[in-house]
Amino acid sequence: MHITIDSHTFITGVQHANKAVSSRTTIPILTGIKIQVHTDGVTLIGSDSDVSIETFIPKSDEEQSYMTIYEEGEMVLQAKYFSEIVRKMPGETLTLKKDGNMAATISSENVIFHLNGFDPDNYPKLPQLEEDQVFTLPYHLLKDIIRQTVFAVSTQETRPVLTGVNFSINNQELTVTATDSHRLAMRTVGVETEETLEINNVIIPGKSLTELSRILDDSEDMVTVIVTKTQVLFKMKNLLFFSRLLEGKFPLTSNMIPSEGKTTVTLSTKALNQSLERAMLLSREAKNNVIHIKSTGTTEIEITSISSEVGKVKESIEADEIKGEDLQIAFNGKNTLDALKTLDTERISLMFTGTMSPFVIRPLDHQQMIHLFSPVRTS
Amino acid sequence: MHITIDSHTFITGVQHANKAVSSRTTIPILTGIKIQVHTDGVTLIGSDSDVSIETFIPKSDEEQSYMTIYEEGEMVLQAKYFSEIVRKMPGETLTLKKDGNMAATISSENVIFHLNGFDPDNYPKLPQLEEDQVFTLPYHLLKDIIRQTVFAVSTQETRPVLTGVNFSINNQELTVTATDSHRLAMRTVGVETEETLEINNVIIPGKSLTELSRILDDSEDMVTVIVTKTQVLFKMKNLLFFSRLLEGKFPLTSNMIPSEGKTTVTLSTKALNQSLERAMLLSREAKNNVIHIKSTGTTEIEITSISSEVGKVKESIEADEIKGEDLQIAFNGKNTLDALKTLDTERISLMFTGTMSPFVIRPLDHQQMIHLFSPVRTS
Repeated sequence: MHITIDSHTFITGVQHANKAVSSRTTIPILTGIKIQVHTDGVTLIGSDSDVSIETFIPKSDEEQSYMTIYEEGEMVLQAKYFSEIVRKMPGETLTLKKDGNMAATISSENVIFHLNGFDPDNYPKLPQLEEDQVFTLPYHLLKDIIRQTVFAVSTQETRPVLTGVNFSINNQELTVTATDSHRLAMRTVGVETEETLEINNVIIPGKSLTELSRILDDSEDMVTVIVTKTQVLFKMKNLLFFSRLLEGKFPLTSNMIPSEGKTTVTLSTKALNQSLERAMLLSREAKNNVIHIKSTGTTEIEITSISSEVGKVKESIEADEIKGEDLQIAFNGKNTLDALKTLDTERISLMFTGTMSPFVIRPLDHQQMIHLFSPVRTS
Repeated sequence: MHITIDSHTFITGVQHANKAVSSRTTIPILTGIKIQVHTDGVTLIGSDSDVSIETFIPKSDEEQSYMTIYEEGEMVLQAKYFSEIVRKMPGETLTLKKDGNMAATISSENVIFHLNGFDPDNYPKLPQLEEDQVFTLPYHLLKDIIRQTVFAVSTQETRPVLTGVNFSINNQELTVTATDSHRLAMRTVGVETEETLEINNVIIPGKSLTELSRILDDSEDMVTVIVTKTQVLFKMKNLLFFSRLLEGKFPLTSNMIPSEGKTTVTLSTKALNQSLERAMLLSREAKNNVIHIKSTGTTEIEITSISSEVGKVKESIEADEIKGEDLQIAFNGKNTLDALKTLDTERISLMFTGTMSPFVIRPLDHQQMIHLFSPVRTS
């Protein structure tokens, strides 16, 4: 293989493929990026066996020509060095040429790198997926959904399914759920798909989604999502993102969410957020993240936090409205703050069902998002 | 003590004092910030026993009044929490009030923190220094000098004096030197002082200078530097920065710098910098940081680097001028890059005295800076 290619375009492609490459893989060839030159352009592939990314640079498009192809072929070069080298090359274009069986020269202006690689025949093949379970949604919406749920996955491997985010579709509505069993984040959204499509228990690893959201931009372009039993594929413009699915049964979460509350508080998202951040200064020190909330018949709620070593804090927030019984509950401030940070609405409602029962936070201006939290036993 | 103070001004003061506080101190009270309220304003003190910072907020200046003082007094509050709390307070002003023997309340709008502290009588006294060895220079110049030398100090404690930067004054000229015995950075600059002042072997810990440079801005304001046998004090506007000095004898460096070279190369700083950064991609991998440079009678120098596992790179740089013998030398690329990054001049001269002798890099447009490097033995 032998090409001269626009440096800027090539760097972007290499960076995308590189996102899937992990330096901690046990399979040496997966530390490499596979480069395939064919008549219509260049394909770059990176993989850590959980996630695979395939990105394509066309030979040319309406705007410009991106490369001159002298010879087709393929090779695998060490991602860590290759991505750094192409980024630091001096010229507007760079030339990539196979040099011997597994090595390459990368040259630009007065610089020549000679880089060792791997045998491309040993690089694993990406899966071919059956396209019968398919839906589409815009880039920016998928990015939002990930941001608003993935923080709630479990970081502990004791229940592997909880390290993933569950996707289900019914009546052209996508429900996305993550929980670590102490808190739950759920987002629903309409998607474009066949009316009859039903998807259940599709658990995508949280890490895969975090990686995916780094590639998604805020555009209105559509992502096509293809689901199989063991894999999911996100098809974007010139980029394929594969992830394995987690095995196992995601907990049934729909019946966990209380429909009615004993106390409902409506207030400013920002006021609650700032108040919890202050209270966390002490709760974090006490290592239990416990914050107390109380309402006693006034129009204010009271937030308190105590660290026996450091001190204590008490503050009041003026609510828009407090309905129902007096309230007193202790909760994990960090979990609640994580959720508040993903809420883009100005005002929220907090619904409590008792001191020892889970409570719910919802945006006030739509019904597409629910956050559920277990209380903390103090005493 | 009891004051209400402008939040913004107070936060800045607390942040300055906090820079001297280390969480790893073995003396518990030094995890605190000392706050002294007196008739003319507030003094804040932080210290880790190597460095102490005292900052003063006047009651008012020409522009505005910063505080209302209800009661004088002093206390010591835990720096880590106190600095975070004042930063997160909601209002334009905050009120600080002694509450019991060693605790305080910090309040602003609807928020009240109660914070435990230490007995202020136990806080160590800052030294009173004799002001007979004194010189002054502008903030921005002191900041530059630190940046251009401190990177070259040793990080190993085997020869403690080399972890410091040596200051000496002769004929109203300050010479600042740092070396880890493989490389040396020296900067000279004229300072305002008495003609007769001679200072020798004043070794300031590199860590102290790094901390000081974070406080210095690029202004033309003058810093007064007061030197004693064991301490140095940098006096700035409303801020005192104390550092202990290192004991021992700094190596005599003036005779290490060769006066004449066998080969002299003049070239672009940026071209050499970018070339070394590329070569380092492989040298860093080889773990020895070795880069080779060669000139062979043309107008170009050749830079090469090899990692047996990863590959190799070769590039040429067009020099402005090459004088003297042909040249071939191996050196530590990281050390040279560190120095190049502090050189603000567009063109530099490299002076070589042989394959196994140290070489010198100087800016082309002034004589106030010298970088010296040992070659590396290969083969």
